[in-house]
Amino acid sequence: MINGFDPAAAPELATGLAPGLADLVRRRAELLGPAYKLFYKTPVEFVRGSGVHLYDPEGIEYLDAYNNVPSVGHANAHVAEAVSRQLLQLNTHTRYAAAPILDYAERLLATHAPELGNVMFTCTGSEAVDLALRVARAGTGQTGIVVTANAYHGVTSAVAEVSPSFGPGVPLGAHVRTVRAFESLADGVAEAIADLERHGIGFAALIVDTIFSSDGVWTDPLGFLRPVADVVHNAGGLFIADEVQAGFARTGEAMWGYQRHGIVPDLVTMGKPMGNGMPIAGIAARPELLAEFGARARYFNTFGGNSVCVAAASAVLDVIEADGLQSNALLVGRYLRDGLTELAGQHQAIGEIRGAGQYTGVDILNAAGQPDGELAVAVVNGLRERRVLISATGADGATLKIRPPLPFGRSHADQLIEALDSALSLSNADAG
Amino acid sequence: MINGFDPAAAPELATGLAPGLADLVRRRAELLGPAYKLFYKTPVEFVRGSGVHLYDPEGIEYLDAYNNVPSVGHANAHVAEAVSRQLLQLNTHTRYAAAPILDYAERLLATHAPELGNVMFTCTGSEAVDLALRVARAGTGQTGIVVTANAYHGVTSAVAEVSPSFGPGVPLGAHVRTVRAFESLADGVAEAIADLERHGIGFAALIVDTIFSSDGVWTDPLGFLRPVADVVHNAGGLFIADEVQAGFARTGEAMWGYQRHGIVPDLVTMGKPMGNGMPIAGIAARPELLAEFGARARYFNTFGGNSVCVAAASAVLDVIEADGLQSNALLVGRYLRDGLTELAGQHQAIGEIRGAGQYTGVDILNAAGQPDGELAVAVVNGLRERRVLISATGADGATLKIRPPLPFGRSHADQLIEALDSALSLSNADAG
Repeated sequence: MINGFDPAAAPELATGLAPGLADLVRRRAELLGPAYKLFYKTPVEFVRGSGVHLYDPEGIEYLDAYNNVPSVGHANAHVAEAVSRQLLQLNTHTRYAAAPILDYAERLLATHAPELGNVMFTCTGSEAVDLALRVARAGTGQTGIVVTANAYHGVTSAVAEVSPSFGPGVPLGAHVRTVRAFESLADGVAEAIADLERHGIGFAALIVDTIFSSDGVWTDPLGFLRPVADVVHNAGGLFIADEVQAGFARTGEAMWGYQRHGIVPDLVTMGKPMGNGMPIAGIAARPELLAEFGARARYFNTFGGNSVCVAAASAVLDVIEADGLQSNALLVGRYLRDGLTELAGQHQAIGEIRGAGQYTGVDILNAAGQPDGELAVAVVNGLRERRVLISATGADGATLKIRPPLPFGRSHADQLIEALDSALSLSNADAG
Repeated sequence: MINGFDPAAAPELATGLAPGLADLVRRRAELLGPAYKLFYKTPVEFVRGSGVHLYDPEGIEYLDAYNNVPSVGHANAHVAEAVSRQLLQLNTHTRYAAAPILDYAERLLATHAPELGNVMFTCTGSEAVDLALRVARAGTGQTGIVVTANAYHGVTSAVAEVSPSFGPGVPLGAHVRTVRAFESLADGVAEAIADLERHGIGFAALIVDTIFSSDGVWTDPLGFLRPVADVVHNAGGLFIADEVQAGFARTGEAMWGYQRHGIVPDLVTMGKPMGNGMPIAGIAARPELLAEFGARARYFNTFGGNSVCVAAASAVLDVIEADGLQSNALLVGRYLRDGLTELAGQHQAIGEIRGAGQYTGVDILNAAGQPDGELAVAVVNGLRERRVLISATGADGATLKIRPPLPFGRSHADQLIEALDSALSLSNADAG
């Protein structure tokens, strides 16, 4: 795992931790087992959050330039109030009639392409992708899925099978093909479909993150997904836009990543930022697809779209609108990338800078100009020492991932750039 | 679906709905699509909940004898306060270190058999079962799963494949075998394992609901699961106890359904009542199983075990302990079943009464003494008209399912019995 804490690989670090942190690390291993991973060479403990900041037990402030789940800010008062009020009113499931979930569904669908007329609610992005796969397979009668080479879509059995970023320990499904995320994507998808069919596996769907986050943050040029969608539809398959990363105004240019490309997906999966940390996620779908699925299967997700999570999600839309967070994302994202471009003039280690809105990728290069995952992780840890949180991504982990809560402003961007300048200046590999 | 609202099957009902309700029904179909189902011949709308009661828009009070998710009561003040406080403090994921999730993990594991030393957190019971299947398959290197004939374990692709209660529209996996829930269960499991092996499919695990809820509420005699666990272990497989229904003190006799039977499962799945409606679920596991899984795969569930859901879950344990809800479940459950037994003397339609704690099944029979699913649904709807909420279960839907929030008391049991008496007295089929 990129930027993971691995006590086995570096026992001297684990033994060098401050006593309180060492105790938490030991208790985690003992209670939660080995599948849980912490971030950072030296993990960090947080006890409080507010806006774009997190605070450790000593009250030290960290600038959060990484977490997209608290999308409208940590401990957002409007969301907290909506949830608190609803908790004392009613929290129930979807088998009793209720207006609020329908009001929210209407409001959410109004932000989507009109062809996407239905929404279904789950608790997590993984469940949303899992449901989208079920719907796509029911709708096409086929099972073949195409994904990008380092895609991450979630953790259920079926979704882990289409998430190559887990690495070889988690095998891809026999009905899954991978393609390179960016270059000649349409050709790659056509070849993958042909290969599926050559193996007797009918093509059901392509699923892509519309910002290609785990593949290294590929955002431009606008419209590059159009020929890909054409290939998919000409082959009788479905285009599933995974908006767990790009959605809910993050790109600044649109509410949804697919809208930047001028395409209309058949299914859209939504997750992380939807409820500002309250577990709500879902799919938007063309109604004709759900007609096929609904004729065969009922769908009930006990907590999915419950009263309290819907209240949270509705409050998130309030804040995005009232605080102009989409336009803030657009402007601050550009400001940040302009600043990073300027900084690149002073640091050979900074390669290509890509992004849209509050999602920015920065390639980190070694002295020979090649992607350098080790240096990228050193930079991430250097920023952590400077109280700024980011991570790295991409197949080789050589792309810095900057994905702050949406209220992240220009002064925060300045602080991030300054910290990055400092971290790179001290890095040995940046001598060139 | 048992007790589902089907406007297509009864258009005269759909057109006869009160205008407000008809509008909600129409909007649901339009916005959420056909996979969503409402309860009841005439659906019911709720706008408020409190303790064991729900209230419709006209303020009419319904006694909730059905919902196990609001386990410590609708709109419980202690849970609401804990969540509200945490929302303003911090809500983050498990890749930063934090003490509260570990404090809760310790507290939760202390209620389990000591062999179950680890816990992992998800958001939903479906995700918990899905994760248990992944862990079981990694741990055994095999894929074969045995389930009971009308089991329901959840909605992800992999879990729907082991949930025969969905019916023929959702095919079982090729590696799945079903057994009758109760009679000769150990023999049935042995045969199913042999059949898997005859097909070249190695046996990974048996997963059973420890109260066999969707199979018709089979609770006794205590210990009947012991020989079953022996068969599973002798075949090298794992015993997965699905405690989504029986867990968190519902049976009155123990915190967990498996404890009533004196067995120690290899994996336990937990869900619905865990956070009183806040989406938190998880698995408890033997650490040696997670060692195998963790060596191959990392597990990260964005919202799973987040700060706010953990605060809710911890508050739920507070209330169970402080209000003595386990012993209340034991006593009120017995009181209810005694009352039902007495009522059976006056109504030929009441057959066998089974249950443990606040989980009771009542077989409904026709005049010939045969299970009568149609009459059971009529009774469920008759109770709805009398402002009491229950449902029906079992393969033929002929078993009343009474599963109230845990604070359900004797006076509530009296009210339920009185309403049932009235509903049965007016039922035509109960003339005999």
